[in-house]
Amino acid sequence: MSTSSPTSSTPTLSDIALRAPESGIVDIMNYGRRKGGVMPLWAGEGDLPTPAFIGKAATQSLAEGETFYTWQRGLPELREALAAYTQRLTGQALESERFFVTGSGMQSIQIALQIALDPGDAIIVPSPAWPNIVAASGLRGADVLEIAMPFVDGRFTLDMGAIEEAAKDEKTKAIFINSPSNPTGWVADLETLKAVHDLAERHDLWIIADEIYARFVFGEAGLQGSNPKRAPSFKDVDPLSSRVIYVNTMSKNWAMTGWRIGWIEAPVELGQVIENLIQYSTSGVAAFMQRAAVVALNEGDAFVDEQIARATTNRDLLAETFAPLNRLQVSAPDGAFYLFFKVLGETDTRQLARTLVDEIDVGLAPGTAFGPGGEAFLRMCFARDPEQIAEVAERIARWISISA
Amino acid sequence: MSTSSPTSSTPTLSDIALRAPESGIVDIMNYGRRKGGVMPLWAGEGDLPTPAFIGKAATQSLAEGETFYTWQRGLPELREALAAYTQRLTGQALESERFFVTGSGMQSIQIALQIALDPGDAIIVPSPAWPNIVAASGLRGADVLEIAMPFVDGRFTLDMGAIEEAAKDEKTKAIFINSPSNPTGWVADLETLKAVHDLAERHDLWIIADEIYARFVFGEAGLQGSNPKRAPSFKDVDPLSSRVIYVNTMSKNWAMTGWRIGWIEAPVELGQVIENLIQYSTSGVAAFMQRAAVVALNEGDAFVDEQIARATTNRDLLAETFAPLNRLQVSAPDGAFYLFFKVLGETDTRQLARTLVDEIDVGLAPGTAFGPGGEAFLRMCFARDPEQIAEVAERIARWISISA
Repeated sequence: MSTSSPTSSTPTLSDIALRAPESGIVDIMNYGRRKGGVMPLWAGEGDLPTPAFIGKAATQSLAEGETFYTWQRGLPELREALAAYTQRLTGQALESERFFVTGSGMQSIQIALQIALDPGDAIIVPSPAWPNIVAASGLRGADVLEIAMPFVDGRFTLDMGAIEEAAKDEKTKAIFINSPSNPTGWVADLETLKAVHDLAERHDLWIIADEIYARFVFGEAGLQGSNPKRAPSFKDVDPLSSRVIYVNTMSKNWAMTGWRIGWIEAPVELGQVIENLIQYSTSGVAAFMQRAAVVALNEGDAFVDEQIARATTNRDLLAETFAPLNRLQVSAPDGAFYLFFKVLGETDTRQLARTLVDEIDVGLAPGTAFGPGGEAFLRMCFARDPEQIAEVAERIARWISISA
Repeated sequence: MSTSSPTSSTPTLSDIALRAPESGIVDIMNYGRRKGGVMPLWAGEGDLPTPAFIGKAATQSLAEGETFYTWQRGLPELREALAAYTQRLTGQALESERFFVTGSGMQSIQIALQIALDPGDAIIVPSPAWPNIVAASGLRGADVLEIAMPFVDGRFTLDMGAIEEAAKDEKTKAIFINSPSNPTGWVADLETLKAVHDLAERHDLWIIADEIYARFVFGEAGLQGSNPKRAPSFKDVDPLSSRVIYVNTMSKNWAMTGWRIGWIEAPVELGQVIENLIQYSTSGVAAFMQRAAVVALNEGDAFVDEQIARATTNRDLLAETFAPLNRLQVSAPDGAFYLFFKVLGETDTRQLARTLVDEIDVGLAPGTAFGPGGEAFLRMCFARDPEQIAEVAERIARWISISA
């Protein structure tokens, strides 16, 4: 036995696998990591590690030997905790049978797409959008109808006319709505959500609802009268709508990005299908990890509030620093924790993002990563220590004034 | 806001999602769990929790705050450890760039299928087979050409003629080979692997090689002269073949079934495609979990040896107990850790598995779960305490003599 060179050539790769693009976010991260010393605001991730009280629950379960196969739909205790958390947030009674534990928000999306789409079907995705939804739809063999959101008076909006047109095609089976939006900070108001739900009813579409950033909502964009403060939800339109599949994650609220735990909330009738789709993709989530998620949901409110407070501070700070800069055009973030902004006169944002890495050690994601309508923008994640954000804002302001 | 009944009906589910069957293994597990007190030999899982020294590495990393997004291809340290482990096993030098960390052996299969198959393509799967490979291929939108393995003189064999016929169809793009086999215990010899590789060359097929049970090989079935003992591998045919994608898992060797960590070994040229497919399905594996996998690979040899010794003891013990029973026909396990056997006169094994749960508290998987050629069999996992296996063997022997 010895190592030799390949004797055969690689067979043809599937069209679908070849079609998946490299993430434009990962591209700049790889570029910046090579340099080192860059303030990493390119990904949707804060600077706080997971709180110790959450990690401890995993450690304890692991020490107790919870290392065997577990429930494909998730531990009953975690499904209960998800139902209770969502109930606290929405004021609506919810069965735990509606909740399914997944190996990330990303996997929740993959499973929702498998439910809604056959190869050759189409899905509507308002754009700019997180690139992974578009790529995952492509991997499903589906066509993605990216509907550019008009940018008017410093805010993105849904183009309901264009969406209606796209919905008319009988191949169109689903619409993906992410509110509050990554990357734009757009937050759908209740009327808009109602209009989308009505449209989905008329055209018999699934709605894949990504309300991951529901807690990060600023100013008047929150739902009137809601306590705790949160963005409007499809739940406020129809609490148990049979056409809405919610995709969610532990990543953002509880600083658990690295854990890869997400969940789906969906009509109970989909239970067996979702269980099968989990079984045949990753076959569940480690029980000892799930114990940590239970503790996060049940005891993590104060930590989430702290994260929201930091994001709010940073949003205001950025607004103040950037307001006087005429070369910047900002999409006012009504929600989520990203600043999406244009530098007037700069057209190649992939290059611009690299220049900012090179010249001021600031890592932002180029708008080219987010599809039609976002190409001219940059995205900054501001879920971090306000001192860091202040420092970054100043570096950018200084760079703008010099490079003008 | 109040809870109300659904006001709309569920949109049509994708054909593909509906096509995924419930696992016949999970079906009997659910049946048996309801009863309680059943010896659980239905799944591919032993009775030992993950060794403490492995868990400790995860605990420490978690305490140190390794809770952020990490490398999509896996931690460099883990990729190095996978390469070193495989090198110890095969005696072949291997680059760590060939190794990719996934969220389970199951996910490794899903990704390999995405690389090899477009919807409408076909894959050859010798049967009986682990049901998840068939189901996952269906979810890819692919046709599965299940080629029944003839059962001759107490052993299953590959029907190379039928495989050649199936390979001729231009839609056929891949063949899945699982040796040592779950559920049959079949181990391909070197000549057979060479014949399969030649066939794949002739018809330009991908080979998806599931050699997960390579270490569990008994008697003369091991590769001549190999130390440590292991089953023949496609690596012995062509160490760096460009058409072989190896799918593997931490689950079995290191008693880490619940962790959901697997890996792919594949030609380096596939690196970017595999990274994309990970990014758009689960976006990586928790770094602190990967630290445990590093320790398992680097320091787990003694534990693996212990697991192999137990399986060997149990295999011999079962052979001895069952040999005198004329009503039993056994597929002699040359590898893996399953006993696949027929009870003559019993035709409905789904019912038979339930009867054994009801009457002797023994949980076996019905052969109906494993596709054509296996319907009349039952599968028993024997990766357990030999005392338990002896007890189960006696219960079955007694039941056979009474129910005759």
